[in-house]
Amino acid sequence: MAKQTKILLDESEMPTSWYNIVPDLPEPPPPALHPGTHEPAGPEDFAPLFPMDLILQEVSMDQYIEIPEEVQDVYKLWRPSPLFRAHRLEKMLDTPAHIYYKYEGVSPAGSHKPNTSVPQAFYNKKAGVNRLTTETGAGQWGTALAFACSLFDMECEVWQVRASYDQKPYRKAMIETFGATVHPSPSDLTESGRAVLAANPDSPGSLGIAISEAVEMAAPHEDVRYALGSVLNHVLMHQTIIGEEALLQLAKVGETPDVIVGCTGGGSNFAGLSFPFLREKMAGRMNPTIRAVEPAACPTLTRGTYAYDFGDTAGLTPLMKMHTLGHDFVPDPIHAGGLRYHGMSPLISHIYELGLIEAISIPQTECFAAGVTFARNEGIVPAPEPTHALAAAVREANKAKETGEETVILTALCGHGHLDMAAYAQYLTGDIVDHDYPEEKVQDALSRLPQVG
Amino acid sequence: MAKQTKILLDESEMPTSWYNIVPDLPEPPPPALHPGTHEPAGPEDFAPLFPMDLILQEVSMDQYIEIPEEVQDVYKLWRPSPLFRAHRLEKMLDTPAHIYYKYEGVSPAGSHKPNTSVPQAFYNKKAGVNRLTTETGAGQWGTALAFACSLFDMECEVWQVRASYDQKPYRKAMIETFGATVHPSPSDLTESGRAVLAANPDSPGSLGIAISEAVEMAAPHEDVRYALGSVLNHVLMHQTIIGEEALLQLAKVGETPDVIVGCTGGGSNFAGLSFPFLREKMAGRMNPTIRAVEPAACPTLTRGTYAYDFGDTAGLTPLMKMHTLGHDFVPDPIHAGGLRYHGMSPLISHIYELGLIEAISIPQTECFAAGVTFARNEGIVPAPEPTHALAAAVREANKAKETGEETVILTALCGHGHLDMAAYAQYLTGDIVDHDYPEEKVQDALSRLPQVG
Repeated sequence: MAKQTKILLDESEMPTSWYNIVPDLPEPPPPALHPGTHEPAGPEDFAPLFPMDLILQEVSMDQYIEIPEEVQDVYKLWRPSPLFRAHRLEKMLDTPAHIYYKYEGVSPAGSHKPNTSVPQAFYNKKAGVNRLTTETGAGQWGTALAFACSLFDMECEVWQVRASYDQKPYRKAMIETFGATVHPSPSDLTESGRAVLAANPDSPGSLGIAISEAVEMAAPHEDVRYALGSVLNHVLMHQTIIGEEALLQLAKVGETPDVIVGCTGGGSNFAGLSFPFLREKMAGRMNPTIRAVEPAACPTLTRGTYAYDFGDTAGLTPLMKMHTLGHDFVPDPIHAGGLRYHGMSPLISHIYELGLIEAISIPQTECFAAGVTFARNEGIVPAPEPTHALAAAVREANKAKETGEETVILTALCGHGHLDMAAYAQYLTGDIVDHDYPEEKVQDALSRLPQVG
Repeated sequence: MAKQTKILLDESEMPTSWYNIVPDLPEPPPPALHPGTHEPAGPEDFAPLFPMDLILQEVSMDQYIEIPEEVQDVYKLWRPSPLFRAHRLEKMLDTPAHIYYKYEGVSPAGSHKPNTSVPQAFYNKKAGVNRLTTETGAGQWGTALAFACSLFDMECEVWQVRASYDQKPYRKAMIETFGATVHPSPSDLTESGRAVLAANPDSPGSLGIAISEAVEMAAPHEDVRYALGSVLNHVLMHQTIIGEEALLQLAKVGETPDVIVGCTGGGSNFAGLSFPFLREKMAGRMNPTIRAVEPAACPTLTRGTYAYDFGDTAGLTPLMKMHTLGHDFVPDPIHAGGLRYHGMSPLISHIYELGLIEAISIPQTECFAAGVTFARNEGIVPAPEPTHALAAAVREANKAKETGEETVILTALCGHGHLDMAAYAQYLTGDIVDHDYPEEKVQDALSRLPQVG
C-alpha cells in the first residue's frame, strides 16, 4: 500500500471548541496588574482595548469555549489544515524518526494568524467596533487582521515595524490588497512614535514600539479597538484548534508524539499546537516532551528574567508577569521578524516555570539551513519563524538516528516563506550571519523593569 | 446543516491516470513539421529535446496513461487539490450562480505547474538525463521545474524573461532555494540571446526568446534535455489530473457545470481543467460551455492566425499548426507574465477550430479588479493569470443575476499571487493601464510566418 503523506480531516470533523488550558493547570497564572496602581487588573482595565467577549475569554475558567458559527464558517476557507508525514525529509536524514508537521500556511494570510484574527474581528464587530488597530512584525499578523476585517466589513490600520516595512514591501501590498492601511513604525502619527523618532530618527522599530502606537490610536475612541496577534490568553486559546486537529489526525494513523517542537515569539503558534497535547499529558494519556524553540538573538524563555513587565515599549499596557528581556529591548534585525518580541506570553512563561515544557534557542543560520533542506525535500519553503522549529526537529531526527529509536516528532509549520524570499536570497549568497546574545543590551533594558511589590 | 466550503478527496481517491483527449476527437490534430523539410516530424526530431517516454506520450493514441507510482508519491505532497465553493463571492455578487474554483496554489511552487514538472523530471531522470534547461515567464514554471529537479536530484537551469527577472526578484530567490540556476533572458550565454541583445540591448525578453535559449543549451548535449511548461500535448495531458479530480469533487456534491472558464497562455491550465469535462460533453454525459480567457494584450485564440509557426522566436523548434501572433511578436509587459506567449497550444487551437470550445479576451484592469474582489471575499490573493478566469466567472455570475438562473460555474484558480504583490501594489495605486491590441505589431510579426506547403 502506498505511504500516506497527508492526513486530512473533513470540514465536518473540524473541532467546534477552543481549549482553555488555564483551569487544568496545577496553579493559576499570576494576574495582570494595572500599570499605575499595580493592583490586579480587572475587566474594566482592558475595556479601552478589547471588547467584553474577548476580555471574558482572557480571564475565563471554562475548559472549552464554543467557536461561533460565523467563525467556523470562515475557518472552513482553509481549515481543517493538513497534517503531513515528512517521508522525504526522513529519508534524506536517514532517520528512523517519524516526522509530522501541521501546516498552517494554507490559510489566506499564509500562517496560523487568521485562527485568531477572525474571531477577534468577529467579536469586535459584534460589539459595534468598526475599526481595529494593530502592530505587525514579520507582516503575518497584519495580513491576517486585514483579511479578517475585510470579511467583516471593518477598517483596519496596521503599524508595521520599520525594518520589516523596508525589507518586505510585498507584505505591505498584501495587507493593502485586503483593504487595510499600513504605517511604518515608529511613525509620526502617535506620541509614542514621535518620542522614539526624536531619540533615534533611524530606529528600525520593534514589536513593542508598534504595539504602543496601535494601542495609543485605539484606546481613546469608542468605536476603535486594538487587536493583538499573540501573547494574551485569548489569542493562545484561539490557536488551540491547531493542536486539537493534530490530535485527531495523529489518532487516525495510530501515532502519539514523543517530542513536540514549536517556534516561539509571543508564543501563540507554540501554544496552539502544544496545549491540547499538554492537556493529554497532564491527564496521563500520553507523555510527549514539549519544547519551545526561540531565536538565539531574542531568547526570552532561556535567558530572560521572569518578572512583571509591560507588553509594549512605551508602558501603556497592563503589567504582565512573563519572561522578558526588558520592554525597551530592541532585538537585532534577524529575519524571523515574528520572533523579535522582548517578552513571552505570560501563560507560556508560567507553564515553563511549572516545569511542564522545555525551551532551547537556535541561531538563525542553522534555521535557514533546515529551511532550505526542508524545501528541497518536502517542497514547501517555510517562513523564517518555523525554520526554528524545523531546525529543532532535524536535531531530534539526528538524535533518533544515533539511538535507532522511531521517535515520533510533531512540529508546526506555522507559515510559508513566499513573502520572505529576500531573506532566503541573502542566506543563499552567504550574507546572513548569526547574532550573539546581546548580554549588555539586555542587562541595560532589564535595569528599567518596573518595580512591582 | 452548515454549508460546505471545500470539497476534498483523500489521497486514495486521487486519479491514477492522465487523460489523453486526442483519440476522442472527431478529427486528429495536424502534425508538427520538421523546421527544415516541412515534412511531418517524427519522434527522432524531438529526441534532442525530450526523452522517449515523453515523446511517445506526445504522439500517443491511448486514451489514458498511467501515472508512475513515483510521480503519484510526489503529487501527494499537495494533491488531490481542494475544490472550493465560493459562497462569500456569490453573496457579495448577489448572484444565484454557484461558483466553484479548483485551487492549484496549494502546490509547493504555488501553481498547477508541478503537475507536469514532476513527471517531466521523472521521465528524464529515468532516461539518464542529469540536467534540464527551461524558460520561465511569470516564474511559476521555473519554480516548478526547480522543485521537481530538487526531488529527483537533477540540475536545473532557468532562463527567466528579463521583464519578469527584474520585476520579480523573489521568484528568482525561490527558484534558487530549490537549488536551480537562473539567467535573465535574453542572455549572452546563447547565440539566440546574443542576437536579440545585438538588435535591442534593452529587450524585455519574451517566452519565445527564452525558449530559444533553453533549447539551444540542451539540444547538443546527451545528458541535458529541455522541459516545456505548456503548449505540448504531453504537458496538457499531465494537467488533466486537475479536471479528473474536479469531476469527482463536483459529483460528490451532485453538481454538473454549465460554464467552465480558464485562463490561457500556452493553454495547459485550461486544458487540464477542461479536457476531462470535454470528454464528458463529447460523450453526451453533460453539456457545459467551455471558454478560454486570454489577455486583451496577447489574444492568440481570438485575434491570432491559425497557421504553422515556430514555438520559439529563433525558429529552433518544429513547426506547429496553432493560433499565433507571429513567433517574434513580443507582447506588451502585462503583469500576467504567464499569458505572454505568442502562440497557443496546437491541441487547443485545433479543438477551438473544431468548435468544441469558445474564447474571449479581457483587459488586465478588469482582471485585477476581479482579483481584489476575490481576495477580499474568499481570502486567497490570486496570481495575475487566473484573475482573467475570475473576471470571466464574475461576468457569468452577473449574467446569472440578470436571468435568475442558478448557473453552475467552474473555474481553475491555477495559482496564488504571493510573488506578484508588486503588481497588486501598482494596481491599488492606479498605476496599471490596459494595453490596446497591438494590431500593427502583430501584422508585422505575422508577415514573417514560415511559408508552409
